[in-house]
Amino acid sequence: MSVGLSAPGILHPIKGIKLASCHSGIKKDATVDDLVLMELDEKSAVAAVFTTNKFCAAPVTVAKSHLESVETIRYLLINSGNANAGTGNEGILNSVKTCIAVAEKTGLSECSILPFSTGVIGAQLPLEKITSAIPGLLSNLSETNWMAAARGIMTTDTLPKAVSKQLKINKKTVTITGICKGSGMIKPDMATMLAYVATDAQIDQEELDNCLNRVVNTSFNSITVDGDTSTNDACLLIATGGSGQVVDSKNVEFMSMLNEVFSQLAKSIIRDGEGATKFIEIQVEQAATVDDARELAYTIAHSPLVKTALFASDANWGRILAAIGRADISELDIDRVDLYLDEVCLVEKGLPHKDYTEQKGSAVMQQQDILIKVNLNIGEQSATIWTTDLSYDYVKINAEYRS
Amino acid sequence: MSVGLSAPGILHPIKGIKLASCHSGIKKDATVDDLVLMELDEKSAVAAVFTTNKFCAAPVTVAKSHLESVETIRYLLINSGNANAGTGNEGILNSVKTCIAVAEKTGLSECSILPFSTGVIGAQLPLEKITSAIPGLLSNLSETNWMAAARGIMTTDTLPKAVSKQLKINKKTVTITGICKGSGMIKPDMATMLAYVATDAQIDQEELDNCLNRVVNTSFNSITVDGDTSTNDACLLIATGGSGQVVDSKNVEFMSMLNEVFSQLAKSIIRDGEGATKFIEIQVEQAATVDDARELAYTIAHSPLVKTALFASDANWGRILAAIGRADISELDIDRVDLYLDEVCLVEKGLPHKDYTEQKGSAVMQQQDILIKVNLNIGEQSATIWTTDLSYDYVKINAEYRS
Repeated sequence: MSVGLSAPGILHPIKGIKLASCHSGIKKDATVDDLVLMELDEKSAVAAVFTTNKFCAAPVTVAKSHLESVETIRYLLINSGNANAGTGNEGILNSVKTCIAVAEKTGLSECSILPFSTGVIGAQLPLEKITSAIPGLLSNLSETNWMAAARGIMTTDTLPKAVSKQLKINKKTVTITGICKGSGMIKPDMATMLAYVATDAQIDQEELDNCLNRVVNTSFNSITVDGDTSTNDACLLIATGGSGQVVDSKNVEFMSMLNEVFSQLAKSIIRDGEGATKFIEIQVEQAATVDDARELAYTIAHSPLVKTALFASDANWGRILAAIGRADISELDIDRVDLYLDEVCLVEKGLPHKDYTEQKGSAVMQQQDILIKVNLNIGEQSATIWTTDLSYDYVKINAEYRS
Repeated sequence: MSVGLSAPGILHPIKGIKLASCHSGIKKDATVDDLVLMELDEKSAVAAVFTTNKFCAAPVTVAKSHLESVETIRYLLINSGNANAGTGNEGILNSVKTCIAVAEKTGLSECSILPFSTGVIGAQLPLEKITSAIPGLLSNLSETNWMAAARGIMTTDTLPKAVSKQLKINKKTVTITGICKGSGMIKPDMATMLAYVATDAQIDQEELDNCLNRVVNTSFNSITVDGDTSTNDACLLIATGGSGQVVDSKNVEFMSMLNEVFSQLAKSIIRDGEGATKFIEIQVEQAATVDDARELAYTIAHSPLVKTALFASDANWGRILAAIGRADISELDIDRVDLYLDEVCLVEKGLPHKDYTEQKGSAVMQQQDILIKVNLNIGEQSATIWTTDLSYDYVKINAEYRS
């Protein structure tokens, strides 16, 4: 079940990136892929952010170490079906060995390969299955395999997630294509999912880091399903320079397109949220600080009482006000708070709006996409996040995951 | 549905306290009570803590104001079925008017009456129903009506909640009897429930405040169902002095009995948690600070992924470690963490224990009462909290509350 999520459209190739995917045997179902290899042109720059969870998986530790020790990343090796988390030193060694397997076949240092894993926690990687699949992946690399890669990194996702956009800068066509996976345990701070976004623009390392940090905050760091965070997750931005067009983080057109790609990918994860029946946007306006605006939005988004009311299509503004009232923010005056569902004003200055009727609220609540807007009328800062409701299916999916 | 919750045993009267309850018409069902009056002897001392939610209900505002303005509280007037929250100035006035109605019939100042409400948010109190019921309540006051009062304050509770204990101090019998209500929206910081505990010990005001603050932290402030907090809730400790025995917060026997009464009441709320199928105790040991221990325990307790695994009787230690890894605490070394379910060691120094089998974990998970014990092996502080799992019924109850 997903909420208004559709299959990706055309995915434009990125000059300088080749991909291959296959079924290596990690997943039981032989009809689905579980191993993806991405080859990056040697002129590519790579920016990355990782989970902040202190219980982080072996591939996160290895990937961070490799990024620090070499200038040029040439391959990304991504497996689904096994998270290689909670696997101790053996897990670290296994993750390094998968990189060595690629290095041996390509004549590179293993540090120029970054490993990624997603799936079940606590089981060792089936190393032999992975290493024996690598020659086949290397011989099948192609610029046109983005969709197969999007499928190959899926776990509980109901659909592959990918976005591709182009625009002309100085008469040159610049392309951005990205894929991601994730449908539960979605929370900010990159503790969330796997995402690989590439552009053929030429961007130097420092500017690429700036670009990623900027857009990740208003996309993957602005979504939440249940407040839980994962052990494995990572978001990469790759610039190959294949278009010959140099850009930086001050280029408004480029940054707008990049933000659009990241936001669409992030929202696609929420639309595929575990057991989601509603797609909820929460806007907090006129807060004293951005941190206040975000904290308040997340307090509403994580409230099980608000989430179950959303599932029930019940415009229960009392639960939303109660969540606002307990948010740990620096400035709040309940008597100034305005609350809207889409354009319907439920609460004005902390009290039910005089023209509000349950019929008006219920009409909005019947929709699949709902906007909850809170105006604190106290400052000038705002924030927007996206989340889901809490349904029977959320409990079912998460209670029966391993059975 | 409740988890191992049984009806209260004998409730000893407290000399100096009389109670009455009735059906005033706030609730639709005429067979259940919805209004309770407690009369306190004029020598009584009263200590109180209230919700910290900034969106607090009218009776909370009024009760706090009355407590500040008079020395002696003589009556508590508690209605169920209507929270008088989100009701603005009219709600404040209505709350005051219920106190005036008691004051007029008793010749007291309205400030010596404390109002309390619990129930639906956003509707004005049916003032006439309440005020016209007061003469009947005043004429039915009795020392033996504790159980009826426990029933009269119920909302979604499946059973009345009450505890009564006695011990001899200096050959005098000292009694503590308490009632409470609450089955959802249970969170620390008194944003949780209504509780009224009385003793016939004689305790001066300052010492009574000390007693309440001490025991409330290890009882009502150590339980959580869903992290949400309510707008109305309050906890009162009343000392009538009726036994003639003077005690203070340094009296170990008395404090032990008081703590036992508070803990049993708090646990009864968790055992009646909305949709609960398991009663979970979370102990965090050897943390750097008490705040760390409590924060970590709450992060585990609020994780929907941990809660759904508990519902599924799945010993999913990966989800518990992931919750530990994201807890916002001052000191954590995942490689030192030990994790137990009851006496079964799942994780030792951050890795699966060598003798652990899923069979051992599953055996504990089948139980109705489960202990999750985390040893951080980093400091000397500890904390214990109580919570529930997250079931289909939690979603059902909270999604269909108003329908």
